[in-house]
Amino acid sequence: MKVELLIIGNEILIGKTQDTNSNWMAKRITKYGHHVKRITTIGDELETISNTIQKILDRKPDIIITSGGLGPTFDDMTLVAIASGLKRKLELNKRAYNSIKKVYDRAYKKGLLQLEGMTKEREKMAYLPQDSTPLPNTVGTAPGVKINERNSTIFILPGVPAELKAMFRNIIVPILKEKKGNFIEKGFLFSGIGESQIAAYTNKLEKKYPQLWIKTHPKIGLSVQVEVSITAFNVEDGEELVDKALNEIREIVTKLNGKIKERE
Amino acid sequence: MKVELLIIGNEILIGKTQDTNSNWMAKRITKYGHHVKRITTIGDELETISNTIQKILDRKPDIIITSGGLGPTFDDMTLVAIASGLKRKLELNKRAYNSIKKVYDRAYKKGLLQLEGMTKEREKMAYLPQDSTPLPNTVGTAPGVKINERNSTIFILPGVPAELKAMFRNIIVPILKEKKGNFIEKGFLFSGIGESQIAAYTNKLEKKYPQLWIKTHPKIGLSVQVEVSITAFNVEDGEELVDKALNEIREIVTKLNGKIKERE
Repeated sequence: MKVELLIIGNEILIGKTQDTNSNWMAKRITKYGHHVKRITTIGDELETISNTIQKILDRKPDIIITSGGLGPTFDDMTLVAIASGLKRKLELNKRAYNSIKKVYDRAYKKGLLQLEGMTKEREKMAYLPQDSTPLPNTVGTAPGVKINERNSTIFILPGVPAELKAMFRNIIVPILKEKKGNFIEKGFLFSGIGESQIAAYTNKLEKKYPQLWIKTHPKIGLSVQVEVSITAFNVEDGEELVDKALNEIREIVTKLNGKIKERE
Repeated sequence: MKVELLIIGNEILIGKTQDTNSNWMAKRITKYGHHVKRITTIGDELETISNTIQKILDRKPDIIITSGGLGPTFDDMTLVAIASGLKRKLELNKRAYNSIKKVYDRAYKKGLLQLEGMTKEREKMAYLPQDSTPLPNTVGTAPGVKINERNSTIFILPGVPAELKAMFRNIIVPILKEKKGNFIEKGFLFSGIGESQIAAYTNKLEKKYPQLWIKTHPKIGLSVQVEVSITAFNVEDGEELVDKALNEIREIVTKLNGKIKERE
């Protein structure tokens, strides 16, 4: 499946917060053989979010995952912006309302909060775009949201990493598993010869194995440490081919008097 | 100035590499009072890069910074893709050629490399889009590139963090400083009351201070630790206003029996 991630939050654009959610999700989406095609990071701006979700839908990914902007304050505007982008109304969702109320009631009883019951700000999190499904938040308060639009499924997740991760594991991983593809990534490190010296050979290998993605990365200096990494996405006999191509590179490196080191 | 970042690299989309370049750059761009409007992360695909650079130009940012895809191998295709997106030819740039040759000559003499002189793969890095300026790479090999297109300036930087940072410091920071704006961000932590309880007050404050961006973030649990952060971008008397608004929130938190803790 093709997946796009939409990361929403001014705190990321001003560099206050390092976004780690997209790397965490990308690893898992890839592991199950699905393709993250693009990660877009934008601020908490109604029009920007609304336009961007439309542009993403135009590219027809199977899955869109957004993170951030679901909280009780005015500047958390992901739901109103996505509703506007999809031309749907926002409406009070009873299941979302009840789950939010339950969290606050429990926290009040435990003495964690001093304000009892629902307020306008707490209710705000229960207003979802029409025809969408609330997703239980087992760690925090704001429910996530699932929306089917055209041929895409949109999952709207909270930005707080612990909440996002729990929801991703509970809701999205089962879907990724159900349509599981095949992903292989293997590699090794070498030293003593540079990336540019091996490039002529890897370029030839790319033509010999067009299904594979063969990548070299200088890790330290020009030739002190270079990484070779070969990736196969949903390739028949992928692992076998990756091993074959890697062995050819190992042979070249050895022939050129480079030193091979296995990755940890 | 409005800035967009374009991060290029399959290794980020598959979750193998955590992109730290964009956070590092965003911090510095913001510090000098400029706005990062969007961060787009895409793979090493010719058509995707080419289309995306056009879409970014349509949004008319003052500055576009790309990272990644400048190396000697076939899959490093940022320059050919951007040339195609801008409808410019790629041509051998003599300054770029000479600087690349110098790096390899020096490395060969030092015994760091076994292959002398320029090869097709090493030359590849000297083919730049027409009418562009090579940017010296003081840490690695591949030069960066500066291109003026419509009303935007495009800076094409390498993806290796040490190389990107050096080039950003040497070339981009002076430009950010020259057109320096004003950016203030201050905040504090509180506990004992939840984000949703303070939300009614911060929503009112947002109306009172429409120039400020007032944000609360639950850091731990519902009310165990919440962060308030106020941001002012190029606001006259920004610091004074931020302090004033923060003090109003401090008073509210205290009145509601919340505990205030300063950030470290």
